[in-house]
Amino acid sequence: MTMPSTPRPGGRSARIQAAVHQAVRELQKEQERAELTVPAIANRADVTPSTIYRRWGDLAQLLADVAIEQLQPDQPPADTGSLQGDLRAWLIEYFEEMSSAPGRAMLRDVLGTPGHANAGKCDGFLRQQIEAINERALARQEVPIDPEKVIQIVVAPLLYRILFANDTPTTQAVEALFERLTMPTKT
Amino acid sequence: MTMPSTPRPGGRSARIQAAVHQAVRELQKEQERAELTVPAIANRADVTPSTIYRRWGDLAQLLADVAIEQLQPDQPPADTGSLQGDLRAWLIEYFEEMSSAPGRAMLRDVLGTPGHANAGKCDGFLRQQIEAINERALARQEVPIDPEKVIQIVVAPLLYRILFANDTPTTQAVEALFERLTMPTKT
Repeated sequence: MTMPSTPRPGGRSARIQAAVHQAVRELQKEQERAELTVPAIANRADVTPSTIYRRWGDLAQLLADVAIEQLQPDQPPADTGSLQGDLRAWLIEYFEEMSSAPGRAMLRDVLGTPGHANAGKCDGFLRQQIEAINERALARQEVPIDPEKVIQIVVAPLLYRILFANDTPTTQAVEALFERLTMPTKT
Repeated sequence: MTMPSTPRPGGRSARIQAAVHQAVRELQKEQERAELTVPAIANRADVTPSTIYRRWGDLAQLLADVAIEQLQPDQPPADTGSLQGDLRAWLIEYFEEMSSAPGRAMLRDVLGTPGHANAGKCDGFLRQQIEAINERALARQEVPIDPEKVIQIVVAPLLYRILFANDTPTTQAVEALFERLTMPTKT
């Protein structure tokens, strides 16, 4: 079951989505994950459990939906004055977030659901942020960087460490991989 | 709740584990994932649902446990006569398996459970196979390769594509990353 990704603002559907998402975020802070149930979420959001099942299918899909909303960037990466500076600062911040307990839980929620839609959105958010950095670089007459290289050389190895090696990459670890990126030279 | 990783062979505990694992593998072939429930598994394995809950905690932990058992290599990588050949052949086979539907389901089961134990075992299996290749290389007087490099340069980017970009890496894609590995030269 899929839900419309952008319910009409102000409509009943949008109000239900907002109330249910808020209930999940509140309950996630208050209790252990194993205690998070659809009836408890429904009760907090003041909807019926069947409303949640009808709209999201199951708890896993609902949690993935909330995680995706939280992973969606709400602003472009900080402007430090150069492509290299922007990229370094954004990568350090991104991996601080992803290796935190809430970041790990979001990744788990996104990767634990069948189908590709949720994980694909994470990939899209990353590329969107790199593109924003590239657009600013172009405006500064800098040569943009290939987003695929950033993902292959820096992002993928760090996500592997977080996901498979339970590692919390330090700033130094992020910078060590960042140094492997050959920065485009000015034309 | 964690289960003993190696129950005493032949004991009641080992028999229950074998029956429940087999029931999961059978039901996974017969029906859609959403229909896979603890009562259905218990029924097929001829145990009570409470036996499953007591031992595995919940369905997600049981599925992760079955996935880990299937991901565990049952033999060392094929011997092709050289480090380079062994590594290339093993990587191509590994990514064929991981990008298949059952491979993706296993990764999802492993990454969707809280805690690091399951995902850490996947990392351990990978390193174990690279070490087996290295041991053979040493016996042939070849210089072994740093497993961390194999993971950073080849494994992590391909897993990223499978997990986040719903991509099925071709043999050519595996080989293109493989070419980036600087093979150690003979001493």
